[in-house]
Amino acid sequence: MTSQQLFENIKAKRSFLCVGLDTDTRKLPEHLKGTPNAVFEFNKAIIDATAPYCVAYKPNLAFYEAAGIDGWRAFEETVSYIRANHPDIFIIADAKRGDIGNTSQMYARTFFETTDVDSVTLSPYMGLDTVAPFLQYEGRWATILALTSNASASDFETHELADGTKLYEKVLKVSSTWGTVDNTMYVVGATKADMLESIRRIIPDHFLLVPGVGAQGGSLSDVARYGMNSRCGLLVNSSRAIIYADNGKDFATAAAKAAEAVRDEMSLLLDKYL
Amino acid sequence: MTSQQLFENIKAKRSFLCVGLDTDTRKLPEHLKGTPNAVFEFNKAIIDATAPYCVAYKPNLAFYEAAGIDGWRAFEETVSYIRANHPDIFIIADAKRGDIGNTSQMYARTFFETTDVDSVTLSPYMGLDTVAPFLQYEGRWATILALTSNASASDFETHELADGTKLYEKVLKVSSTWGTVDNTMYVVGATKADMLESIRRIIPDHFLLVPGVGAQGGSLSDVARYGMNSRCGLLVNSSRAIIYADNGKDFATAAAKAAEAVRDEMSLLLDKYL
Repeated sequence: MTSQQLFENIKAKRSFLCVGLDTDTRKLPEHLKGTPNAVFEFNKAIIDATAPYCVAYKPNLAFYEAAGIDGWRAFEETVSYIRANHPDIFIIADAKRGDIGNTSQMYARTFFETTDVDSVTLSPYMGLDTVAPFLQYEGRWATILALTSNASASDFETHELADGTKLYEKVLKVSSTWGTVDNTMYVVGATKADMLESIRRIIPDHFLLVPGVGAQGGSLSDVARYGMNSRCGLLVNSSRAIIYADNGKDFATAAAKAAEAVRDEMSLLLDKYL
Repeated sequence: MTSQQLFENIKAKRSFLCVGLDTDTRKLPEHLKGTPNAVFEFNKAIIDATAPYCVAYKPNLAFYEAAGIDGWRAFEETVSYIRANHPDIFIIADAKRGDIGNTSQMYARTFFETTDVDSVTLSPYMGLDTVAPFLQYEGRWATILALTSNASASDFETHELADGTKLYEKVLKVSSTWGTVDNTMYVVGATKADMLESIRRIIPDHFLLVPGVGAQGGSLSDVARYGMNSRCGLLVNSSRAIIYADNGKDFATAAAKAAEAVRDEMSLLLDKYL
């Protein structure tokens, strides 16, 4: 998918919502717990209910790997299901991979050949060698960690370098030369909305994947105000507030309502800032 | 396992070798290619052949994930096999994970509960939040990326900070306060052997996991000279040079010979520097 196609989907759906599929077996509705393939069945219902209101899904690999082989199967089935039934939707494997050389190539193969996602989240610590193999795939993306919303982002990410920039700013400056706006986007934590202005000075045209709205305390209107560019340039993720909106038999309907409410807010923000 | 137990194993085996199980389905011996469970069968033979000469195994997750469900099964079976048949051996899941909060907890669960490894490689980019959940498990370890051996390590890792230290030095200084020498070790690339002296000034007592000897060009004697401490403090990894020592039916015998030769060199170095 190109950035223009992603923008067309955003305009068509009036939404820049990414639904995080952080599906925790311990948090499934009671009637699904212990049933065969419960994670996939849960995801399938969530996906069909929320697809009208979002443009991306972000399965978080940690939640699948924790169940071992069964978890990996549920991840693969989830990706296949989205591809087959909602082919316009962008899929981000939230895997935070970060290795080099032939290992990095194997990770790219995992996510772009063995499974079929559009993008993978990557840690920039080891530099270009981590990201380059992912940029070799036409139409696929690297989603690079820049500034995250957690407390210990201050341990290293916001540390000042000798040239006066902060580490996450250096990551943006350096890594934005590796690819294009059609194959690179950045993770920028929503609790740092005030930093979005300075980030937009460094990468005005790239898409940003913004986690941390909702449960982690970021404000959607601040994100739109400081982060939106002329082609939206935002994917805002919400996980728990949508997929666990209700824990009963009507969990999918509740998820749809929660996603619809976010879409409605996003629609107004698109009117306001685009 | 404690650091003292690891040191006792090193002394008993006269070896600080870690064998990297980067098992690539495309590089298997011809007679194994396409057989059921070929990756696990290959690993099993390699493990039984090399276990007398090494103190650790390091399966690289990328190579398993690239085969999807079958790959994940081969990884789990490999770990179980080592545990059951060579219980003194330290197992490092080379996964380069790096996430936060409940996601990081899920990764810790994956590797310390769903599978049963001793340590996981972690990227420090997001700070303490990435590492903390792994330190909650008694006897388990976090193996944190510090200075890697790849060309683009210079993109960020060796960048100078405002206080005059380099990023990897800051990572060592800050993260060595999070845990102890019994639950934290560091990845330090062997091609940077001259930097080991300065690294040892920051973390004199921690174990280092040193990849990059052999195929990636580092010198084992330099690593021992500059990196060894009073309890050895080194695990030196070799992957391809051992597991692909021969591509025929006698691949396991060839791997044993390659591992034995490294052990012999390590034995001399232990005599010299310990």
